Amino acid sequence: MIAVLKNGVSDVQKSSLINWLRAQGVEVHICEGKFQTIFGLIGETSQIDIDLLNGLEIIDHVTRISEPFKCANRRFHPNDTIVEIGSGKNMVKIGGGNFAIIAGPCSVESEEQIIGIAEDVKRSGATLLRGGAFKPRTSPYDFQGLRGEGLELLRKARKATGLPIVTEIMSASHLDLFEDVDLIQVGARNMQNFELLKELGKLNKPILLKRGLSSTLKEWLMSAEYIMSEGNENIILCERGIRSYDPYTRNVLDLAAIPMVKELSHLPIIVDPSHATGKRSLVESMSMAATAAGADGLIIEVHNDPEHALCDGAQSLTPEQFTKVAGKVSEIRKLF
Amino acid sequence: MIAVLKNGVSDVQKSSLINWLRAQGVEVHICEGKFQTIFGLIGETSQIDIDLLNGLEIIDHVTRISEPFKCANRRFHPNDTIVEIGSGKNMVKIGGGNFAIIAGPCSVESEEQIIGIAEDVKRSGATLLRGGAFKPRTSPYDFQGLRGEGLELLRKARKATGLPIVTEIMSASHLDLFEDVDLIQVGARNMQNFELLKELGKLNKPILLKRGLSSTLKEWLMSAEYIMSEGNENIILCERGIRSYDPYTRNVLDLAAIPMVKELSHLPIIVDPSHATGKRSLVESMSMAATAAGADGLIIEVHNDPEHALCDGAQSLTPEQFTKVAGKVSEIRKLF
Amino acid sequence: MIAVLKNGVSDVQKSSLINWLRAQGVEVHICEGKFQTIFGLIGETSQIDIDLLNGLEIIDHVTRISEPFKCANRRFHPNDTIVEIGSGKNMVKIGGGNFAIIAGPCSVESEEQIIGIAEDVKRSGATLLRGGAFKPRTSPYDFQGLRGEGLELLRKARKATGLPIVTEIMSASHLDLFEDVDLIQVGARNMQNFELLKELGKLNKPILLKRGLSSTLKEWLMSAEYIMSEGNENIILCERGIRSYDPYTRNVLDLAAIPMVKELSHLPIIVDPSHATGKRSLVESMSMAATAAGADGLIIEVHNDPEHALCDGAQSLTPEQFTKVAGKVSEIRKLF
Amino acid sequence: MIAVLKNGVSDVQKSSLINWLRAQGVEVHICEGKFQTIFGLIGETSQIDIDLLNGLEIIDHVTRISEPFKCANRRFHPNDTIVEIGSGKNMVKIGGGNFAIIAGPCSVESEEQIIGIAEDVKRSGATLLRGGAFKPRTSPYDFQGLRGEGLELLRKARKATGLPIVTEIMSASHLDLFEDVDLIQVGARNMQNFELLKELGKLNKPILLKRGLSSTLKEWLMSAEYIMSEGNENIILCERGIRSYDPYTRNVLDLAAIPMVKELSHLPIIVDPSHATGKRSLVESMSMAATAAGADGLIIEVHNDPEHALCDGAQSLTPEQFTKVAGKVSEIRKLF
Repeated sequence: MIAVLKNGVSDVQKSSLINWLRAQGVEVHICEGKFQTIFGLIGETSQIDIDLLNGLEIIDHVTRISEPFKCANRRFHPNDTIVEIGSGKNMVKIGGGNFAIIAGPCSVESEEQIIGIAEDVKRSGATLLRGGAFKPRTSPYDFQGLRGEGLELLRKARKATGLPIVTEIMSASHLDLFEDVDLIQVGARNMQNFELLKELGKLNKPILLKRGLSSTLKEWLMSAEYIMSEGNENIILCERGIRSYDPYTRNVLDLAAIPMVKELSHLPIIVDPSHATGKRSLVESMSMAATAAGADGLIIEVHNDPEHALCDGAQSLTPEQFTKVAGKVSEIRKLF
Repeated sequence: MIAVLKNGVSDVQKSSLINWLRAQGVEVHICEGKFQTIFGLIGETSQIDIDLLNGLEIIDHVTRISEPFKCANRRFHPNDTIVEIGSGKNMVKIGGGNFAIIAGPCSVESEEQIIGIAEDVKRSGATLLRGGAFKPRTSPYDFQGLRGEGLELLRKARKATGLPIVTEIMSASHLDLFEDVDLIQVGARNMQNFELLKELGKLNKPILLKRGLSSTLKEWLMSAEYIMSEGNENIILCERGIRSYDPYTRNVLDLAAIPMVKELSHLPIIVDPSHATGKRSLVESMSMAATAAGADGLIIEVHNDPEHALCDGAQSLTPEQFTKVAGKVSEIRKLF
Repeated sequence: MIAVLKNGVSDVQKSSLINWLRAQGVEVHICEGKFQTIFGLIGETSQIDIDLLNGLEIIDHVTRISEPFKCANRRFHPNDTIVEIGSGKNMVKIGGGNFAIIAGPCSVESEEQIIGIAEDVKRSGATLLRGGAFKPRTSPYDFQGLRGEGLELLRKARKATGLPIVTEIMSASHLDLFEDVDLIQVGARNMQNFELLKELGKLNKPILLKRGLSSTLKEWLMSAEYIMSEGNENIILCERGIRSYDPYTRNVLDLAAIPMVKELSHLPIIVDPSHATGKRSLVESMSMAATAAGADGLIIEVHNDPEHALCDGAQSLTPEQFTKVAGKVSEIRKLF
Repeated sequence: MIAVLKNGVSDVQKSSLINWLRAQGVEVHICEGKFQTIFGLIGETSQIDIDLLNGLEIIDHVTRISEPFKCANRRFHPNDTIVEIGSGKNMVKIGGGNFAIIAGPCSVESEEQIIGIAEDVKRSGATLLRGGAFKPRTSPYDFQGLRGEGLELLRKARKATGLPIVTEIMSASHLDLFEDVDLIQVGARNMQNFELLKELGKLNKPILLKRGLSSTLKEWLMSAEYIMSEGNENIILCERGIRSYDPYTRNVLDLAAIPMVKELSHLPIIVDPSHATGKRSLVESMSMAATAAGADGLIIEVHNDPEHALCDGAQSLTPEQFTKVAGKVSEIRKLF
């Protein structure tokens, strides 16, 4: 951690700050320049509240040199984390060289629909089934999901196909309903719902943590840290595009986040090309690009009747389209 | 609502879509061009799920002409909403020409601290007291607030000074603790925590809804709509800066949002210059600018000992600085 | 083009507008709703100045339905453009299934350096040589390039290796010096230097048009249109990342722009992973991802002595690293 | 300047870097930590190319502590710069407490139009006349300005009213035509047209430098530095909004840039509320807010017949509206 002092700070003020910092358990190295004094802080700096330091009248600014996340930090955990989802012969691994495709509809709509799609996507190579039961919609007047009933239908689809199920939670108060969900998703809008993250940290169950609408990589990894610091280390990150100014695509898919996150952290990272682009015609090329960039998996929207999907239909593939995408992705994976 | 069809759609497909739309209760006007066919949809279009339409194979794209919010829409409620906070002689009005300043520390730290600041800011013209008890911090290792104890200290400060209290809620599961909070704040990170918004919609208590980290005005007003559609119409919006790429300020304070929101909606809107800029030295000028732009109030961080604030100290004013700001703001208000 | 009228516009005003629009040569279809009147404008709408229409007191807003670019528009030119660079046996094609790698140093520094790198990258599969002679640097105190002398050194490297040369122009007043450059690059900062674009439109020489720092796809294609409308249709687009808020990478590489641009336009599009990320460690995975996304080529920074590069060294590969990247890219290309 | 070394750098490599840095004339202070070594560089660091340092294999990253601009830096020039425009009794000062309003149409269209508006805005308190002769339009098919003829009409309006004239230059090759323009404007799209900036640096004439579409404050001040380092110190900065994701306004007006720039630099800064918002209805409140934020002036679009403006009509005020805005701004200025 680097603290740059303002001009004209007195020696007494400097000593007082140095003493306080040393009392916090950090070493202080001092570089005195003509215009500026710089303190290099070494040691347990993650304990120091950077806002507090920044708030001091004599400080110009403070910069962290080492990342403030610990559990999620590759520096302290050099090996890739492998997350196991589901159990028995249908158990799926993600991370550390294990690649998987999660597929399914935006929303669970009926037993026939979800079982039909589950069978379709399983046939084409998906090993996990996604489906929204609780839906975070921008408008209160749009379809909000089948909620508890949707979860029940997902369980039926799992029973029919063996595919572990992935679905989004919107509030810690629904946790009872999610007891046998195999992979619980935290959506982009809840990435900094810290009370929810803490509750998920107490579970012994994998969490799929989507990147916030315009979160930095550091904020994202700090949200993972919220879960991990409570004890749950089974986290899969999911890049799903960040806010942009160009109306042609819903978001900007930030694929450089994949290798960058892998440098910073040991957690697996997958990509959602469907929500990222919001356009069916871009899903194939972005699935291939994400795989080539080193993603540990994909989550793709598939609908058996895109003409009548209750939400986000514009980005859903038909099962035929999905089969084609899964095939191309598999060609790229062979290069790894 | 405007639906633009793809090239080469057959007459049968067009008729089928027109019949479906009419069955939804909307009128369809057809403009046939050489390259494109456009449908103008008139009537109850807020019932139509735009994603569903966009998902149809024959549709190029769909655009809403009228805003999808109703309760929050000035078109249907031309008069300014006036929100009343607290009761009796300390009751404060915001909106419709009523301007108020909310002031106080980022975090409640001790009885002495919060009562001291409450007395200071009351003396300088603040009519509401803010103070964080539950703190949404990016890092799980940073100070998280005194929680229930902090709320108790706020109540003591209200008793001592008469100032109604404003504080942030982070989860619907804490609602019991917030029963006698005068103005409940929803923070930027929870602006799209829809389950929380729905619960707040069932209360008969004013809500301060901060703008999300990079939310559009439409998304923000749709979040207000989530609360209002459940029955609670006492909402004050708060602009607090949006994400930007320039490291000099924490966020970009979007002051044009004030007159723009006032065109779109009847809800009052206030400004938080402290969190928006993250810099103490910018709070005075941004308070003046926000007032000149037509804001209905301000929320400003004040600390009696900024050198030791437990969080966000860099942006807190001393009581002396606050007095100066409140005076300048009051000069500007005289012009309205 | 869609024009939405304000509420309360009189019939006289409507008729007057309709007459004026028809005099401009467009058909007007009228959709009258309870709250709004919508005009659908059909025909030669690219001649209509959208700002002029938006400026009318009776207009709420105007939206273009068809894209305002013509020469660059795939609708009117369904086949991929293939750009030919250089001549004779060293001629290189880009677009329409032809893929090429441009490689070389950020700046030309010496004859030994540029010829050495040219030989290195040719050996590894690059078919064009890049090198900056005129350098747009944010600071006037940073190295500005060898200018005319740098161009001379590039010509020597071409003579030595046969590789056609690619280099950036910063002002139309330098055009004489660029007469025998094979592919003239317009940098991101000059993407809307319209006077320069018009001059380049008068040449019979391929242009590499980089995307602006935060330009939309439409603005980018309109800049291509500036060149094409003067007669020069040999344009290659280059995605090089757009501005973002996350400090880990220099820009956000927008790979979805590749398939999106290919839907909108017939022009070839290549990717610059070096400038996009600003990090050597991300160049390999982003080169693979761009290729998998369907790019028509890559432009990669390579330096024979990255420890002493005069600019942008952080993102340059060594020749050994480049060889590895070129090999992986070639594996991905086999899937196309 | 702070250089953070990678883990595992050998002592030999460290010594070699230290020697090289000292040879560049900077002092090196070394902070050795358990995980990281930090070098604090003190002295003439603006001579060091930060990209070069970042490019070294042993460097993790480098951060500048002091700003890289010198001529524009308030640290070295504590007093406000006052720019004088025009001469004799019509001379106008901007900066250092001097406030001025520049007004006029987006484009010069005819002698009658420009003289009429000039007389109107002069009567209402504007002391400088703006008008576009060379127009940077996104589309090559939109009106490009009257060019030389427009400049001639501006001169006639100056003769008729005495108002100094302000107009935009798009290429150094037009400099001859701008010889007697009183204040030469560099538009947002040319903020990093460095060849143009250098030419303007050789003039003895005030320059109005608009902020780039999404430029940082540092990039903007470095562009000013390009002009100043050539000898021309008469620069007025102009905030005109930065790119955003919200379609309701054309850009986000960043008013916090005003006090922030004034901390960093001694140059005057004015605001363009017309282009920033793109909406006539927002110009009044944003003019008031900019003035309250401490701007040194405003540049406002006024048209005598907004219904038929040839460009950007949506944001132009009528002379009556302008008179009202100028009156309100003058009330706010009395508080300064």
